[in-house]
Amino acid sequence: MLTEIAEQPDVLERTIAAEREKLVKIGDFLRQKDIDLIVLVARGSSDNAALFGRYLLEVTTGIPVSLSAPSVYTLYNAKLRLKRAVVIGVSQSGEGDDINHVLEAAKDAGAFTLSITNEAGSTMARLTDETLLIHAGREKSVAATKTYTGQMLHFYMLASVVGDKRIDYSRIPEYTSKALELKEQVEEIVQRYAFMENCVIVGRGMNYGNSYELALKLMETCYVVAERFSSADFFHGPLAIVERRFPVILFGPSGVTKKSNIDLLDRLRELNADSLSITNDEEIAGLSSRGISMPAELDEFLSPIPFIVPAQLFAAYLAEAKGLDPDAPRSLAKVTKTL
Amino acid sequence: MLTEIAEQPDVLERTIAAEREKLVKIGDFLRQKDIDLIVLVARGSSDNAALFGRYLLEVTTGIPVSLSAPSVYTLYNAKLRLKRAVVIGVSQSGEGDDINHVLEAAKDAGAFTLSITNEAGSTMARLTDETLLIHAGREKSVAATKTYTGQMLHFYMLASVVGDKRIDYSRIPEYTSKALELKEQVEEIVQRYAFMENCVIVGRGMNYGNSYELALKLMETCYVVAERFSSADFFHGPLAIVERRFPVILFGPSGVTKKSNIDLLDRLRELNADSLSITNDEEIAGLSSRGISMPAELDEFLSPIPFIVPAQLFAAYLAEAKGLDPDAPRSLAKVTKTL
Repeated sequence: MLTEIAEQPDVLERTIAAEREKLVKIGDFLRQKDIDLIVLVARGSSDNAALFGRYLLEVTTGIPVSLSAPSVYTLYNAKLRLKRAVVIGVSQSGEGDDINHVLEAAKDAGAFTLSITNEAGSTMARLTDETLLIHAGREKSVAATKTYTGQMLHFYMLASVVGDKRIDYSRIPEYTSKALELKEQVEEIVQRYAFMENCVIVGRGMNYGNSYELALKLMETCYVVAERFSSADFFHGPLAIVERRFPVILFGPSGVTKKSNIDLLDRLRELNADSLSITNDEEIAGLSSRGISMPAELDEFLSPIPFIVPAQLFAAYLAEAKGLDPDAPRSLAKVTKTL
Repeated sequence: MLTEIAEQPDVLERTIAAEREKLVKIGDFLRQKDIDLIVLVARGSSDNAALFGRYLLEVTTGIPVSLSAPSVYTLYNAKLRLKRAVVIGVSQSGEGDDINHVLEAAKDAGAFTLSITNEAGSTMARLTDETLLIHAGREKSVAATKTYTGQMLHFYMLASVVGDKRIDYSRIPEYTSKALELKEQVEEIVQRYAFMENCVIVGRGMNYGNSYELALKLMETCYVVAERFSSADFFHGPLAIVERRFPVILFGPSGVTKKSNIDLLDRLRELNADSLSITNDEEIAGLSSRGISMPAELDEFLSPIPFIVPAQLFAAYLAEAKGLDPDAPRSLAKVTKTL
């Protein structure tokens, strides 16, 4: 897992170089079509990348996005109106039976289909109209890291060619490299959490998917019961579980989500909770019990990939601190079959 | 909370009687329009009802549904293409600022807007094109119960007039009454869980929203760190948190979700986990550590409202068993303001 985390800047560079031209063509094609819906289909970490993709695509393209519920197709055999939709499957392996079932149904319904995958020869890549390939090499760890950020990158590249907003994603690999320099700092901080059994992860907007992803990493590699919420939803009930010293980990970039994150941190201080923020904002760092510092100039829009890196490191080192092997989580296999 | 749980059959009867005709008119109007997207906007328990509504509407009408991310509008000021969309706000009070902001933006974008609310004079009811009213009387408990099932009922009524499938929702109040007879059984079972601090709630398809709702109830009234998953997602990582005696609560109706729930229960037995199933299926009951029995003849399609009743009772009695007051959760207010 640690090796694959470190490979991410290279994977991102490689993916940009190899896929950029294909994306321009797909963008030209999609801009001519009358598209009024994007459907994202995924499970696990890929679904967390899709959750990020949802915010990014809606905000930059104005096209509504729906995160698919595969059971609607696989269990209830529904036939949806998808003639003016682009349906995008997101899967590391491209071998999720349920994801592929949804993509087949979408094709039958007249949708244009895309896949975002690490495997060019996979079932998913073969059945979709176009494939956006992540150039990650094989991912051996059960806990996805480099394919998660590779999937996120593809959403940036796609948003950039479909929407009117040009996004300067070319600097993301560089910021991802910088984030890897936090290794030692994270390894130190982790010691404090060696006996943590529960926690809440909070992120909002562009970093909402990251809160799901860190929670999943903590569940699968550290066996921590990790809840995930947006700072907005957290006030609707779940806040009641927080008591003195309850650990909350926050993705707190500067930018539009800052205000609600500050409100949350104020409330957590009143409750004497323990807060750890991954942040590039001084005020957020000042209000948190502990902070992991990201580069101040990093734009909120480009923050999700660099911000997940210290979180991935946190999960990998915490597993070690707990005496667990992050590469061999109990009860799990790399490719999960569901139908 | 217990009083309001008991009021549910009456609330449902009243709502059907009062709203049925209005729904027929709205259905006629919507069937003439060229609608290719339904967007649901909600937070908290209402969002859990919307999660149910998503499955029901997609399966019965074939129109794709998107669960709105309010931040896309409130923080990022996105303007979405919603000309052929119906946008439905779901809120007990009708006073959630962010929900109302999304509905206003949707109107500006040319969408037809609906609200599902308990307050006829609310801001939300005034700003939407049509209002579907829950006839619940005032809901005093912070933990929503009767308005949650009232919202679900409106999705049945709406699905029935928009889709081609006639749904016999008129028997739901009767099954809800029957579910209330489980009171004493639930009160007894709860004792075993008095010291439970973590758990996982599993539901799939039509009962997926219920897994979110029971988790929320346990967080807000019992301070239990309750995770919620579909049985499909649970195999993608989170299963690793389950160890000997780890409590898993399952919504296990007979019908299309049975197979995946059986697979899960088999796996939980191997792991020596503790399972409590709310079920009307003998095989599921047999594979579970404990069961709460629902009427065998209840169709999976109509199960969500009756099935949430023992879960609501479970949360209310567990709070009492833990020495807590379910009507006065720490840190929470009835109407949550977020923007």
